[in-house]
Amino acid sequence: MSDAIQDFYPDDFARCFGCGRLNESGYRIKTRRSGEGTSTEFTPAVHHTALPGFVYGGLIASLIDCHSTGSAAIFAVVDRGEDVGSGPSPRFVTAHLEIDYLHPTPLEPLQIMGRLVEIKGRKVTVDSEMISGGRVTARGRAVLVGVPEGFAAR
Amino acid sequence: MSDAIQDFYPDDFARCFGCGRLNESGYRIKTRRSGEGTSTEFTPAVHHTALPGFVYGGLIASLIDCHSTGSAAIFAVVDRGEDVGSGPSPRFVTAHLEIDYLHPTPLEPLQIMGRLVEIKGRKVTVDSEMISGGRVTARGRAVLVGVPEGFAAR
Repeated sequence: MSDAIQDFYPDDFARCFGCGRLNESGYRIKTRRSGEGTSTEFTPAVHHTALPGFVYGGLIASLIDCHSTGSAAIFAVVDRGEDVGSGPSPRFVTAHLEIDYLHPTPLEPLQIMGRLVEIKGRKVTVDSEMISGGRVTARGRAVLVGVPEGFAAR
Repeated sequence: MSDAIQDFYPDDFARCFGCGRLNESGYRIKTRRSGEGTSTEFTPAVHHTALPGFVYGGLIASLIDCHSTGSAAIFAVVDRGEDVGSGPSPRFVTAHLEIDYLHPTPLEPLQIMGRLVEIKGRKVTVDSEMISGGRVTARGRAVLVGVPEGFAAR
């Protein structure tokens, strides 16, 4: 059985370029529990370059963004005493995103680790670290808001 | 003659997925002076979706990021009393990026407007607004740092 939260997004919310399992052009990232936190892995393509040999900042922001929405869903599920995959996942959207680019990120397999800062009603705050080439190259903080059930996309 | 700053990035710095004119897989955005500020336009593809009908947040972050590096270069050129295209452009990288997602961004042609907050040595701060469907849907602030001349990418 899958343990990735994105595999439990309802179909209508599974088309995001970054994290929708139904978007065949997209990154289709998978976010899982890892200890008390969360983890996402992604291998960038050669064309995802910034300066040669390094990942462009927009991909770093995209990955931290979608990793954070997935992490928020995981933390919300765990917070109500359930397991990932025990039912459809709640879906979160980003209200605020901050990235600190600490070092150039080598164009190598990337890992993003997530940590719960706070759950307050429908609002979840998640901190993230991107790891590449054996060190933390970027840090993120995202504030995510739960999409109300019954929300109809146009 | 072109008036887009990205057309004057040295070749070694023109391969970024977001803004490199030499990256054939990328967005190849063009940023120009507009009044006292800057402007970038971009038409998203259908697969750049978040929830159906809206642009995913990672693209918004990517566009604001690369628009901000281009805007910083424009502001730096103007600050030293030169015109865009009067010589090779300086190149900036992002140290810090913040995005406030105010409303869902319709999947329509997008405009990003930039405003200089501050130039302090090699550090430039730029504020941006993304406009879609006739209103501001996201706001960004980026802190950019000039790449020293003679910087060698690996």
